Amino acid sequence: MSELSFPTSSAAMLESRLPPPTTSSSEASQTRPFVTLTFATSLDSSLSLAPGVRTRLSGPESKAMTHYLRSRHAAILIGVSTLLADSPALNCRIAGATSQPRPIIIDPHLRWAPSSTDKVLEVARLGNGLAPFVLTGLDARNLPAARVAVLEQHGGKYISVPTIPGPYDRMRFDWNDVFNALYHENLSSVMVEGGGQIINSLLDSRYHDSVDSVIVTVAPTWLGRGGVVVSPNRIQDSAGVPVPAARLSEVSWHPFGEDVVLCGKLHN
Amino acid sequence: MSELSFPTSSAAMLESRLPPPTTSSSEASQTRPFVTLTFATSLDSSLSLAPGVRTRLSGPESKAMTHYLRSRHAAILIGVSTLLADSPALNCRIAGATSQPRPIIIDPHLRWAPSSTDKVLEVARLGNGLAPFVLTGLDARNLPAARVAVLEQHGGKYISVPTIPGPYDRMRFDWNDVFNALYHENLSSVMVEGGGQIINSLLDSRYHDSVDSVIVTVAPTWLGRGGVVVSPNRIQDSAGVPVPAARLSEVSWHPFGEDVVLCGKLHN
Repeated sequence: MSELSFPTSSAAMLESRLPPPTTSSSEASQTRPFVTLTFATSLDSSLSLAPGVRTRLSGPESKAMTHYLRSRHAAILIGVSTLLADSPALNCRIAGATSQPRPIIIDPHLRWAPSSTDKVLEVARLGNGLAPFVLTGLDARNLPAARVAVLEQHGGKYISVPTIPGPYDRMRFDWNDVFNALYHENLSSVMVEGGGQIINSLLDSRYHDSVDSVIVTVAPTWLGRGGVVVSPNRIQDSAGVPVPAARLSEVSWHPFGEDVVLCGKLHN
Repeated sequence: MSELSFPTSSAAMLESRLPPPTTSSSEASQTRPFVTLTFATSLDSSLSLAPGVRTRLSGPESKAMTHYLRSRHAAILIGVSTLLADSPALNCRIAGATSQPRPIIIDPHLRWAPSSTDKVLEVARLGNGLAPFVLTGLDARNLPAARVAVLEQHGGKYISVPTIPGPYDRMRFDWNDVFNALYHENLSSVMVEGGGQIINSLLDSRYHDSVDSVIVTVAPTWLGRGGVVVSPNRIQDSAGVPVPAARLSEVSWHPFGEDVVLCGKLHN
């Protein structure tokens, strides 16, 4: 497993955007984890060329940043579509990392059938990462025993989360329930990484107060029409006129190789 | 007419991205104008919330930059849809500007009926800008005499440009013919400003060699789905696999107020 290194100067520039390294008494009053939303897009706001197509967007500096950010969070969260499409390792490969983040998979309908050949479980078996906690809408007694066994053998588990009706009659989670579940697992911080549906739903104005930090990498490329686009649902004012869906405050931009890293907050 | 000022330090940072201020013998060998493509988008690559809805995206610093860029080009170019939607002044309001850029309107089907109350003609009458050259697919003898008269009274004119078949059976211009027409008017440089159709068509890979400089301002806002999006048509490799539509080289990013300004080139 090749290790990545992230310059101290770059780490310093991100420090104010990250969860505090130690828990103080003020943090103890928190009732949810510190939430960081992070992803990389093209100039036309695409995460990838098409659903399920892994697309190299950002440079090596950005990859090292992602792993540094993982080292600073108790958990990293992705949607099940990304897990199925990419089979990611979901570990932290930064040099000198002393602990691994807990992978969290959003899987309301239990689409993932864990197998010991899945990269994320392989990495856990080798001691290079943690097995995931899978958040599902199924009740614990309805979970297939074989899946439970594979997951638990690797140190992961299923966690049942209430569901609410979403678009197309699909059940989905409310982000508040997700963060609540993580908080009850003593996970003090979570880095939400993707994919498109996860990011767009968290950019919804209902959840702006639940996001503590946004870190977006933009690559100087246009992928072209038809990609997986980050763009929240539009919102309208009381007169029905469309208004901007989300604006960052406390903004800073950091050129980073060929890319730029944008930091900000969704709430004022 | 309020004047805008643009800091010398910011101007210096853009200098290498701009057409040379004087024509040297090497430029004299050029057969087309220096072409700068410039626009401002949201993080989700929207120019505006909806077609025809003027959307304040970037800060006052960016506005001053636009007018500084106009002062450095012989011509500024927009599509007729933007003219009809915004009725822009299309002049340069930077403090100390010694000349005005020539507005160029891309209007293959003669949708614009010039009227003395149009802002761009009002500004020309007052001596605060130039009247536009309107590029049209109609033959000179088929132009309505009244429109020709209004335009010429203000110092503008129609220029006939060959058309080629475009999508939906609409005739359109080839950018090479547009730039050729400007070159024959002794316009040594042109800043292409918008709107969406104009920008997307110029980002097509066929024209990358015709664009000398790209300057994009990005505001830290997501406008949400349904906006006027900058995203070129997708391209595929010989195996039918989608590949990035355009990538900038010689990239630099310049934080600018709350926005970032991205400079680069489309050809290597």
